Amino acid sequence: MVSVAEPARRKLRMALIGGGAPAFIGPIHATAATLDGRAEVVAGALSSSPVKARAAALAFGIPLDRAYASWDGLLDGEVRLPSERRADFVAITTPNHTHFAIAHAALQAGFHVVCEKPMTTRLEDAIALAELAAKTGAVFAIAHAYAGYPMIQQARAMILAGELGQVQAIRIQYIQGGLRAQQPGVQPVRGAWKSDPALAGPAGTMADIGTHAFHLVRHLTGLVPAELSCTLRSFYPGRTLADYGHAVIRFPDGALGTITVSQVTHGRLNDLSIEIDGTEGSLAWRQEDAEHLVLRRWGSPVRVFERNARGDVLHEPARSLCRLPGGHPEGFLEAFANFYRAALDEMAVRDLRIPDIKRDLVFPDVSDGVDGVQFVQRCIESHADRGAWKRWAEVPPSGAPET
Amino acid sequence: MVSVAEPARRKLRMALIGGGAPAFIGPIHATAATLDGRAEVVAGALSSSPVKARAAALAFGIPLDRAYASWDGLLDGEVRLPSERRADFVAITTPNHTHFAIAHAALQAGFHVVCEKPMTTRLEDAIALAELAAKTGAVFAIAHAYAGYPMIQQARAMILAGELGQVQAIRIQYIQGGLRAQQPGVQPVRGAWKSDPALAGPAGTMADIGTHAFHLVRHLTGLVPAELSCTLRSFYPGRTLADYGHAVIRFPDGALGTITVSQVTHGRLNDLSIEIDGTEGSLAWRQEDAEHLVLRRWGSPVRVFERNARGDVLHEPARSLCRLPGGHPEGFLEAFANFYRAALDEMAVRDLRIPDIKRDLVFPDVSDGVDGVQFVQRCIESHADRGAWKRWAEVPPSGAPET
Amino acid sequence: MVSVAEPARRKLRMALIGGGAPAFIGPIHATAATLDGRAEVVAGALSSSPVKARAAALAFGIPLDRAYASWDGLLDGEVRLPSERRADFVAITTPNHTHFAIAHAALQAGFHVVCEKPMTTRLEDAIALAELAAKTGAVFAIAHAYAGYPMIQQARAMILAGELGQVQAIRIQYIQGGLRAQQPGVQPVRGAWKSDPALAGPAGTMADIGTHAFHLVRHLTGLVPAELSCTLRSFYPGRTLADYGHAVIRFPDGALGTITVSQVTHGRLNDLSIEIDGTEGSLAWRQEDAEHLVLRRWGSPVRVFERNARGDVLHEPARSLCRLPGGHPEGFLEAFANFYRAALDEMAVRDLRIPDIKRDLVFPDVSDGVDGVQFVQRCIESHADRGAWKRWAEVPPSGAPET
Amino acid sequence: MVSVAEPARRKLRMALIGGGAPAFIGPIHATAATLDGRAEVVAGALSSSPVKARAAALAFGIPLDRAYASWDGLLDGEVRLPSERRADFVAITTPNHTHFAIAHAALQAGFHVVCEKPMTTRLEDAIALAELAAKTGAVFAIAHAYAGYPMIQQARAMILAGELGQVQAIRIQYIQGGLRAQQPGVQPVRGAWKSDPALAGPAGTMADIGTHAFHLVRHLTGLVPAELSCTLRSFYPGRTLADYGHAVIRFPDGALGTITVSQVTHGRLNDLSIEIDGTEGSLAWRQEDAEHLVLRRWGSPVRVFERNARGDVLHEPARSLCRLPGGHPEGFLEAFANFYRAALDEMAVRDLRIPDIKRDLVFPDVSDGVDGVQFVQRCIESHADRGAWKRWAEVPPSGAPET
Repeated sequence: MVSVAEPARRKLRMALIGGGAPAFIGPIHATAATLDGRAEVVAGALSSSPVKARAAALAFGIPLDRAYASWDGLLDGEVRLPSERRADFVAITTPNHTHFAIAHAALQAGFHVVCEKPMTTRLEDAIALAELAAKTGAVFAIAHAYAGYPMIQQARAMILAGELGQVQAIRIQYIQGGLRAQQPGVQPVRGAWKSDPALAGPAGTMADIGTHAFHLVRHLTGLVPAELSCTLRSFYPGRTLADYGHAVIRFPDGALGTITVSQVTHGRLNDLSIEIDGTEGSLAWRQEDAEHLVLRRWGSPVRVFERNARGDVLHEPARSLCRLPGGHPEGFLEAFANFYRAALDEMAVRDLRIPDIKRDLVFPDVSDGVDGVQFVQRCIESHADRGAWKRWAEVPPSGAPET
Repeated sequence: MVSVAEPARRKLRMALIGGGAPAFIGPIHATAATLDGRAEVVAGALSSSPVKARAAALAFGIPLDRAYASWDGLLDGEVRLPSERRADFVAITTPNHTHFAIAHAALQAGFHVVCEKPMTTRLEDAIALAELAAKTGAVFAIAHAYAGYPMIQQARAMILAGELGQVQAIRIQYIQGGLRAQQPGVQPVRGAWKSDPALAGPAGTMADIGTHAFHLVRHLTGLVPAELSCTLRSFYPGRTLADYGHAVIRFPDGALGTITVSQVTHGRLNDLSIEIDGTEGSLAWRQEDAEHLVLRRWGSPVRVFERNARGDVLHEPARSLCRLPGGHPEGFLEAFANFYRAALDEMAVRDLRIPDIKRDLVFPDVSDGVDGVQFVQRCIESHADRGAWKRWAEVPPSGAPET
Repeated sequence: MVSVAEPARRKLRMALIGGGAPAFIGPIHATAATLDGRAEVVAGALSSSPVKARAAALAFGIPLDRAYASWDGLLDGEVRLPSERRADFVAITTPNHTHFAIAHAALQAGFHVVCEKPMTTRLEDAIALAELAAKTGAVFAIAHAYAGYPMIQQARAMILAGELGQVQAIRIQYIQGGLRAQQPGVQPVRGAWKSDPALAGPAGTMADIGTHAFHLVRHLTGLVPAELSCTLRSFYPGRTLADYGHAVIRFPDGALGTITVSQVTHGRLNDLSIEIDGTEGSLAWRQEDAEHLVLRRWGSPVRVFERNARGDVLHEPARSLCRLPGGHPEGFLEAFANFYRAALDEMAVRDLRIPDIKRDLVFPDVSDGVDGVQFVQRCIESHADRGAWKRWAEVPPSGAPET
Repeated sequence: MVSVAEPARRKLRMALIGGGAPAFIGPIHATAATLDGRAEVVAGALSSSPVKARAAALAFGIPLDRAYASWDGLLDGEVRLPSERRADFVAITTPNHTHFAIAHAALQAGFHVVCEKPMTTRLEDAIALAELAAKTGAVFAIAHAYAGYPMIQQARAMILAGELGQVQAIRIQYIQGGLRAQQPGVQPVRGAWKSDPALAGPAGTMADIGTHAFHLVRHLTGLVPAELSCTLRSFYPGRTLADYGHAVIRFPDGALGTITVSQVTHGRLNDLSIEIDGTEGSLAWRQEDAEHLVLRRWGSPVRVFERNARGDVLHEPARSLCRLPGGHPEGFLEAFANFYRAALDEMAVRDLRIPDIKRDLVFPDVSDGVDGVQFVQRCIESHADRGAWKRWAEVPPSGAPET
């Protein structure tokens, strides 16, 4: 939607790495980043095939002289451009095993980074990125875009304001079916690399969508795990990586979290559902019905908060992320755009010297990326040890509770 | 989302008339039109206040030399530009009473037109526009954007394919609350002009949202009314125009339609719901849950069609309008963008000589605009005559059933 | 459920007329009447076939000497029994055209009456019954059992308490599919008599289920119509009686009601939905989701009231009708039992001299029966006159607003 | 509802132990058992307080000479009655710690038994009951009444028929809030004994409702666990017993089950939800929306099965358990009555020599009771061992997969 940005604020320049057809995630990054007029796509390394890369550049409206054949070519090329043309940030939407190398090089070359999850496939790499990002001062955002839904921010604000009392239990189910083919005996096409350990890393579904769930636990409650136990399964015939998994998380104060993820449940689309129990109330939210947030508290009727309903019903962070009047459904694209808006605003504060941008969304950053990778790491360790509890380590830079 | 447009296809140039803050409809037009990279906003007459118009132009990214102070100034200015810079079409988002004059002048000046509903406030004006558009050969699209929802196109395709048998009954309720203030005694801010007959025309809610409902009846079923009866109410204190209304429509073959509209129902957002009964099945759809379409038929379980679920479940017109995988909610913006995509593709066929663009959505055009205005006209006549049946007139150019 | 009745209170004795298999309505009357231990079935005239009547008597646990071959035989036989054995009331579940004769005779014989809707097929008969009931002092209840749902009573209590402000609009849709056969070309089995004017009276669906809808309008709001307009349709091939209909109701103070009924919508079960708009809030309820009532009011989140949730959330009339804790679904049977409980309590007050029974449900009585028949009458008149407005007549005994 | 029982079949005589006010479970047993005319309540030991027991007997319609002051008094008294008056079975609805002694004595005295869950508080007691029941030949039913919902039987029939392929994952959440008081600092009234280890046994919520969830896993899928891991929590201040818990179950063939139970989630009523993933389809069901069962399978729209919809849509076991036409909601009472119907039919087969009663519901029996107690036992062991996996033991009589 049309930006209400400051007159003097220029559009930030985005270089997109990966994301050519048939993946949907590249177009989502490009569209979400540019939706509000805060950014423009100026360069891309969209495919390892030159023919495909060129076609994709056309589709993204990227001039051919900045349609690079490789990500390192892109970094080299952009660095050489004068600063008033050079990309401000790179968005990394390639398979997991490449994230580290690209992000590391991009940071060293002086770019801000927006990176798909999981940030890396090894915990030490994640820590290295965090350290490097701290050194360069770059903005480093992880695309946990579900945090961009206004009603997720409403939930977070309610919890921060103490409206739930003390959080005691968190239940997340994230159920998809995309890694089960319609016809048995074949491998599903979309996301084929997600089943290949060489490309996806060792963790499968728990990395691919479990990190989203875990991020929301951290983002919504601020709680840091004490230890976790995990059981994984590869249900689909011929698959090595886990396509189903379950984690139990103990928090230091006794709170208990459970995360169940599936990518092989027949007919389920993208059913991320969250329930949070506090001493003063309980919340429920489903991504496929993202415009509503349900609050229950004994003594009151069930209260359903609607996105951008009239009146002072929502907390400011939720309200400020709404583009359309309530009842005109917003969706995944707007949530993703909210994630980008937050990251772009932070880049604008740092680079464009616009200090007073109001920021309602605490965007997921490199420390959330480290947390996600540690989560996957502990899950793999626990599963390999028959579900034994694995302690959460304080990792520098600390994944401190957001405030 | 990133366009899959033909390499040689340039972006069409849009001039936006009306739609500056605080209206949300201007940004929606601009964002929807440009979402797929098929268009760009190049000019605007965004406010009758020069200061506001200038600020709005900045927000829309319109260069100041094309930020016009009035719509006639815009038409004059654009016509004088060389054809390779001149706007290709104007989008009219001003209050209803101005639609006719602007659209008429725009057609005469050689522009394509995208116009908000109701197309005009008088039926003779609507007919005049249709005749003029036929003469100039311009594309003339009416922003009945709800037709752009994939599941509406799925419903239409199912009906066209005979999967419902013969349509016998249609029930539409379109319930909003936006014209009721939270505090009694004050007039609601947003859409204040919608309550002013001088600006909105004589019909109020039946024009503002009833035309959407009526368009969907025509668009989904192809049925043309035989006659209709209408009762209107102005429930909110101090309001002249109707903010509530009800129409009964008889069709020549005995089918019966009912349309109920409200803009004063406490707490209701944008609850457009449609039920269609056929001899072989019945359909139900709600705009606030736009991703699902429900088919019922004795002898089968209830079948819920989901947007862009895997497999050959949807008809092609529905599938082709999807941008994101199922379960990643799309919403009003994407529906609006689908409406624009269809209109822009038609402009491209005519102006850019790209003949073979596949078009899945039959966009609402000037004849739908005439139909909508006749609907409002008959409603007013019937209400003034205590609900007497008013015959539907065949109006040239005929609002023929779409095929 | 187990009664909490006064120790000295004996069970009232029920004689069931009609309702043998395969109808479900007979067993519902018997089970609902006896569910709380306030009544017992002692006699029946369950079928005009003696063999069937005898089998049915066994199924109902009726001793064979009180399994009568005809309704007049039943009245004769019961009257001759000593008062301590004689039935206290008759429940009439036969086809519509017989209601009047049976009810009239039953009143004259000194029985209380529970009668299915529509009370009669002619308005003058309904008035005659009302006059006779007033004379005999009998309890005369009409089985508008939907009023027995706790959440309907919650809605009524909220409206009575002024929580909705002034009621301005009422929208009821009552959509079934039972009169459409699964296979075209055959007539549906269940309720076959409902399509036969000789048995069902002249009105079809508007009598069969429209009277339920109309009763709820009256029961919930207390409003009395000023005039109404109606359009009917017989959509199913070979059917004389209307199986679809639509009524618009004008109330004296400007309020507007719409009632749409269908019994030919493919796959729809018993979808009675009600929306009520007031100046201070709006309510919505669906019979197929009867445990919830939705209140909307600008400035608050949507509030969903749940049956028998903990805390002082519900008004007393709703609370007192609950048998099971919230979340243990109650349904149609319990609603029907609540209707019976109210009627039986009234009989107990009159016959058993138990004066202080607390009565939470104002049961639909003979005046509601008259109202329902007038509603059907006006609908038929209006339809025959092409939807012309027909004035509501004040009928003695007055269908006064309940308080 | 009225029974369709054989003419010669007499009502079975029920003796109710426990269940006086304010518990709702006693009335539910009495009402459910008698709903179809297959049983009558003839005796009771309803309270340990003689005054309360007498009042309760009146409410249940029990003659005072069979209103016993204690359960052993009841057993003694009934045994002395002539066989044509003596109770046929006892229903045990007392706190958990008493189940074993009462059931054991009842079996020894020659009665059939219907017993609340958990069957006992110790596994060895459960085994002893199973052995004794096998010896006496009595019917021994455990009140896992959720199995009585028609749509649960539809799910079971679909799984048995292979329509889901091989079951791979089961997710059950059973979320209540009843053990959290509305006002902090007080203990909730209802079910107070459920928080007292002396009365409820060592397991709290996992016994109280976890056994329902576990029974459904077994009943629906026939799977027998290989091992399980459990984590428990007592979240409510001042409570010893767990009011929250989580179990992970591994099955021999690799299938994975998760069960999460809460009785302290603010505002949640009785939200038992079940999801089952198979290689050919997935199912979802919620108790609070018990009339619907959702089947998903790639390549088809989502299919929602409705209770007793017209046509050959449901499997016979589901259809045969329906009393009312679809759309007239049935609820918990009818499910409970279905459970009783199955147990009573089995008693009738054994005692009344009516051999050919068709039985659609495999009622939960003593082996299910043993399974439930073992489930609780393993949960407690695992929790005490920090969630270590505990092997499932084959317990005689074997909890063999039902067929």
